[in-house]
Amino acid sequence: MSEYILNLLPLKGREREEFEAAAPGAVHVYARSSTVTQAQIAAATVVFGWPRPEMMRGATSLKWFQTMWAGTEEYDGTLPPGVQFTSSSGSNSRSVAEHMLTLLLALCRRLPVYLDSQRAHVWKDEGRMKTILGATVLVAGAGHVGSDFARLCQGLGAKTVGVKRTVNGPVEGFDQVRPMEELDHLLPQADVVALVLPHSPETAGLIDGARIALMKEDAILLNAGRGSVLDQDALVKALEAGKLWGAALDVTDPEPLPEDSSLWDAPRLLLTPHVAGGMRLEITRRNCVEMALENLRRYMAGEPLRNVVR
Amino acid sequence: MSEYILNLLPLKGREREEFEAAAPGAVHVYARSSTVTQAQIAAATVVFGWPRPEMMRGATSLKWFQTMWAGTEEYDGTLPPGVQFTSSSGSNSRSVAEHMLTLLLALCRRLPVYLDSQRAHVWKDEGRMKTILGATVLVAGAGHVGSDFARLCQGLGAKTVGVKRTVNGPVEGFDQVRPMEELDHLLPQADVVALVLPHSPETAGLIDGARIALMKEDAILLNAGRGSVLDQDALVKALEAGKLWGAALDVTDPEPLPEDSSLWDAPRLLLTPHVAGGMRLEITRRNCVEMALENLRRYMAGEPLRNVVR
Repeated sequence: MSEYILNLLPLKGREREEFEAAAPGAVHVYARSSTVTQAQIAAATVVFGWPRPEMMRGATSLKWFQTMWAGTEEYDGTLPPGVQFTSSSGSNSRSVAEHMLTLLLALCRRLPVYLDSQRAHVWKDEGRMKTILGATVLVAGAGHVGSDFARLCQGLGAKTVGVKRTVNGPVEGFDQVRPMEELDHLLPQADVVALVLPHSPETAGLIDGARIALMKEDAILLNAGRGSVLDQDALVKALEAGKLWGAALDVTDPEPLPEDSSLWDAPRLLLTPHVAGGMRLEITRRNCVEMALENLRRYMAGEPLRNVVR
Repeated sequence: MSEYILNLLPLKGREREEFEAAAPGAVHVYARSSTVTQAQIAAATVVFGWPRPEMMRGATSLKWFQTMWAGTEEYDGTLPPGVQFTSSSGSNSRSVAEHMLTLLLALCRRLPVYLDSQRAHVWKDEGRMKTILGATVLVAGAGHVGSDFARLCQGLGAKTVGVKRTVNGPVEGFDQVRPMEELDHLLPQADVVALVLPHSPETAGLIDGARIALMKEDAILLNAGRGSVLDQDALVKALEAGKLWGAALDVTDPEPLPEDSSLWDAPRLLLTPHVAGGMRLEITRRNCVEMALENLRRYMAGEPLRNVVR
């Protein structure tokens, strides 16, 4: 039976030809998540992209679905049984890592205060700054994003320590990788603590008031994983008490952050609205395309796929 | 005759002992720029630090003066004839380079807009961003700061091109170094144009409206050298017309920037009040100390000094 490949990826230039060359015998149908029809979903044997999860319940011919992002929870229970499910884990890790580095450096150089001064037309020297050179950067979560962020920090002269659930060898970007059980021992040594953990029963509330208290007085805290990992009230309390050089969050709990949350105006806190990842850089888009092409070649050759969710 | 070493550097810990070990036979006197007396200046054969220039007119015993920064113009005409004059060129180049990188990344990730949203308690996605990965970074001025900044950019995956007056071989951090005459040819190719030039008759107004027009529509412009190098009115006009992704200035002309300058509120412009360098990082302070120690050892051994101004 011929394959019906429903391609919802944001393709450019001659990328359609790349897919057609990878699966010459197949029917290739191109659409957008916003315009795809239920009939197309029903006919597809392969789907690439990010369709609305409820539509996937009608994917009655489906054999394989590759989503555009690392996160896959939203499709839980929507895919017909027996369907192979792969992710694009890592596709936007460079974007997230660069955003985290930007937030970190912005805090080091006091950009939020300087921007407030600019808005007020005030030329005022705020004194001492911090550098990443020689700093110890502790990253909780040593997957694609953690590894990419650590590599960027290493490139700027930081020492990097990763913590993860199961340590089974070195991870690129990290000078050391330690098991999560050592977190409380490692927190007091870190100049920067960066959280890139997914939401799970084990990670929820992991960084609470007691763990913030373990951090150096002038440490920097970053969160770009999931908001639930951090006790936000404890963070606001710590910042108000003068603890920490600063903190930056790209994720909150809940999202969007309610207008009356105390996070917005917490001192030395920098907030961005979950924009570290997503389709904001051309490199992210191209990564998604390449991951789909690579797996399509494997699929056509009967080889095992990459980034298998199930 | 014994040396009288007047040390105005911000020393810490056991650093006095390092100076005393480097010149065991000398008289070592420690003071601050704010408290040093004219009698101490008159007695000194060697001065380290950043005294007020007019005080140096009374340095009647002086043989050698090493200032704390790269800039030396302020001492023009104040040092008695025959005095050897050295600088601490490069002492704060890492700090300036990190500040420039921070400004660059902040523009790439739209931090100014996100901070405005934060202040307004607004959770709003601003869409597309830029990355330094694969970007061509053109640096006008390939001295200590330009080289350090280029090296940081290279470490994050950028291609770097330096332009300088006289090209005599490769410079660390740069993939290529080209003569200043090629500037107009290089500007249209750059994703980032970074200015780290000193003020001089040749550099004044170098980046005018015509050269801004040569830049890519979505290029980023940085200035961390001297404000006079850039035609600020032309920049404001270009930004208001939608040209450039953004610009960031740590230096302006004049400084401090007048409260009614059109720079403060120019769109997509990020301003910091000449805070990239100075004594803001411990590494900068320690660099100044090490440069003084190294030259003191050379001085005592009768060897040629480094960073000779005259």
